[in-house]
Amino acid sequence: MNFPTRPELWDSARVTDVPSMRELGERARAASRQVAVASTAQKNDALLAAADRLLAHGDEVLAANAEDVARAEDAGVAATLVERLRLNPSRLEGMARGLRQVAGLPDPVGAIADGWVRPNGLRIQRVRVPLGVVAIIYESRPNVTSDAFGICLKSGNAAFLRGSSAALLSNVAIAAAMHEGLEKAGLPTDALVLVTDTRHEAAVEFMQLREYIDCLIPRGGPNLIRSILENATVPYVIDGDGNCHVYVDASADLDMALEIAVNAKVSRPSVCNAAESLVVHAGVADAFVPRVAGALAANGVEMLGDERAASLSALIGPAEPADFATEFLDLKISIAVVDDLAAAIDHINQNGSGHSEAIVTADLAAAERFCTEVDAAATLVNASTRFVDGEEFGFGAEIGISTQKLHARGPMGLEQLTTLKFVVHGDGHVR
Amino acid sequence: MNFPTRPELWDSARVTDVPSMRELGERARAASRQVAVASTAQKNDALLAAADRLLAHGDEVLAANAEDVARAEDAGVAATLVERLRLNPSRLEGMARGLRQVAGLPDPVGAIADGWVRPNGLRIQRVRVPLGVVAIIYESRPNVTSDAFGICLKSGNAAFLRGSSAALLSNVAIAAAMHEGLEKAGLPTDALVLVTDTRHEAAVEFMQLREYIDCLIPRGGPNLIRSILENATVPYVIDGDGNCHVYVDASADLDMALEIAVNAKVSRPSVCNAAESLVVHAGVADAFVPRVAGALAANGVEMLGDERAASLSALIGPAEPADFATEFLDLKISIAVVDDLAAAIDHINQNGSGHSEAIVTADLAAAERFCTEVDAAATLVNASTRFVDGEEFGFGAEIGISTQKLHARGPMGLEQLTTLKFVVHGDGHVR
Repeated sequence: MNFPTRPELWDSARVTDVPSMRELGERARAASRQVAVASTAQKNDALLAAADRLLAHGDEVLAANAEDVARAEDAGVAATLVERLRLNPSRLEGMARGLRQVAGLPDPVGAIADGWVRPNGLRIQRVRVPLGVVAIIYESRPNVTSDAFGICLKSGNAAFLRGSSAALLSNVAIAAAMHEGLEKAGLPTDALVLVTDTRHEAAVEFMQLREYIDCLIPRGGPNLIRSILENATVPYVIDGDGNCHVYVDASADLDMALEIAVNAKVSRPSVCNAAESLVVHAGVADAFVPRVAGALAANGVEMLGDERAASLSALIGPAEPADFATEFLDLKISIAVVDDLAAAIDHINQNGSGHSEAIVTADLAAAERFCTEVDAAATLVNASTRFVDGEEFGFGAEIGISTQKLHARGPMGLEQLTTLKFVVHGDGHVR
Repeated sequence: MNFPTRPELWDSARVTDVPSMRELGERARAASRQVAVASTAQKNDALLAAADRLLAHGDEVLAANAEDVARAEDAGVAATLVERLRLNPSRLEGMARGLRQVAGLPDPVGAIADGWVRPNGLRIQRVRVPLGVVAIIYESRPNVTSDAFGICLKSGNAAFLRGSSAALLSNVAIAAAMHEGLEKAGLPTDALVLVTDTRHEAAVEFMQLREYIDCLIPRGGPNLIRSILENATVPYVIDGDGNCHVYVDASADLDMALEIAVNAKVSRPSVCNAAESLVVHAGVADAFVPRVAGALAANGVEMLGDERAASLSALIGPAEPADFATEFLDLKISIAVVDDLAAAIDHINQNGSGHSEAIVTADLAAAERFCTEVDAAATLVNASTRFVDGEEFGFGAEIGISTQKLHARGPMGLEQLTTLKFVVHGDGHVR
């Protein structure tokens, strides 16, 4: 197998000789049948070999990436986007380490979720099996190519990947290293099928391959999500916004509340589990709001508050109602003061995006009510929203954080890329 | 509350004064928050009261239904469809019994699926919670109104229902009885919101209420499914076709195989878990095919076979390739002879719809391989495909049978109308 350093694949990708989307789907489907029944050892061998090959071909991958980066810079792409695209030896090491970590995780396939015997003697089991073909559409970060491949393979799925045109050369080079790993372990290389046709029409066709795609996971911004909602006919899981709240209850330890609020906002403002809004019980607002405003301001955070919050600190500007429904993804936060726990829950259910919602409280009943009535993928008591993450939950790897309720809710690890199959044993049973 | 016997509601439904779809969604959403935290006892009270009110209002419900039936007959609707629409005292009794049965089932809400402690001391639990608002679009059978309401309520969800225009008067009357049951138990009547605007545009609007609908389950034919795929932006679970196979292995007890094949085909040919195709190992084809052909013919079954099958019995006509991918839903079956187990698995994975697939065998390795490699919601060993059903699996109630792999696969009972929420406890944890 020739390692594609750059040229022909990239050129041909945009003109002719590209396999049709259905042909690619057919290949992913065929490979998925083999990967689904591969042993844990064989999948781990492939993952470890893929990590090795990625580092062995490090120079070629970085050269391909440098070309992607140069092209993006020539095209005047924003510096933050170019940064996401850029690889370097340490990022490459990180990608290889990620593959090795996934090899070390327990294999979810084959676990018996439950089983029972019917009065007529029929024995029923539910067995965990791979989804089949998992499709992922993603934007510029090329590390998703190896990350997604790893988590799909370990969970027994074929990965059907479509990255952005900006990262095409990088993705092709990374995929080639993954293919070498698969070959080395005797698994079909089509366990990773990379779509190299980066036209918009091709994306739409991709989202409609119902015969070949069992689950589509988009990883990108609002435009991508909108396109999925409008065009996709394959089943998908949306990795949506995180308009996360920290609610400081009347009984909260205010030192703890301060630490959690600041951590949830400033430790990494650009990610979906960062807090975007602070909700404070009126009983502690006088004491807490000025303190937290000072601490947030010291961290460079811009604050927009409702009338009551703004009246308590000159650091807090006036908020529009829409600010409370906004995911800033920046050093910016909205602050509301509420009369009681019920009002806090209403406020959060009204404005939240169903991602992660935290309460700081010393009151057991308040904690229980908050966790029961707030409608979100994760509710947290006395902990920062920043913990809602596959790594922090101990999944070892994460393919996204679902904000929908179907199939997977919250951080998605290996188990979320599987489904349950009924296996029924009889002895000539008829109805 | 006035019990709507028929007139104004029905007329107004088609002209003015109908609440907007968003308003209905808002009402269902608000009710869902209350129903989600209702106690098991309160939900059961509502179900039992609804059953009582349904029978108490039996005359009005049957009168409304008689009008629907008369209208359908006047419009020249096919007799089988009119039959699906028609209620009678015994069907009404069955609907009430269904509600009482659901009251007797265990409540899935609040169960702790699993939990663990992280090295940093963070305690993580996954708790079973209702989906929220479950929307169902269904065709003429009015019993779905009470069946769906019952299963949604017991699982803590608000039911947002849209039946067909043909059954509108029946559905309005049944919903009114359910509302009385909810009122009696002190639950919000909007735990069942019935859409009475039966225009096509309204259906499309319904499928796009992302803010209000957590899960949509269509119960209807291919046109409805196509419309969902094209228009829906809310998450949905497809209750799809059942192109089910019975595979008779080389080692099968042929008496058992005969009984299972005939049962799977003829016991109820119109349902999705009926067999549509018979696959026979070449080693037993000479002995089995003529026997099964005779037995199926005696039951009025039309048979279409591949060359080898047709050569073994004059009762078997020639099949086109497309026949093997067809769900006949009738006294009709396709028959293929294959060289070995691997060919049987390929044939089934190629032509099946991922519903229910049975093997008849005495060979342990063959049974295991079949169950592992056949890609379907249910695989059965020595049992008829007809057992793949919520009642037969012991779920007590069923809202459909999913042929997709996301969220729910196979028969969907109460648990499949719930999701898991992460509940995280810390002690001031920050990252």
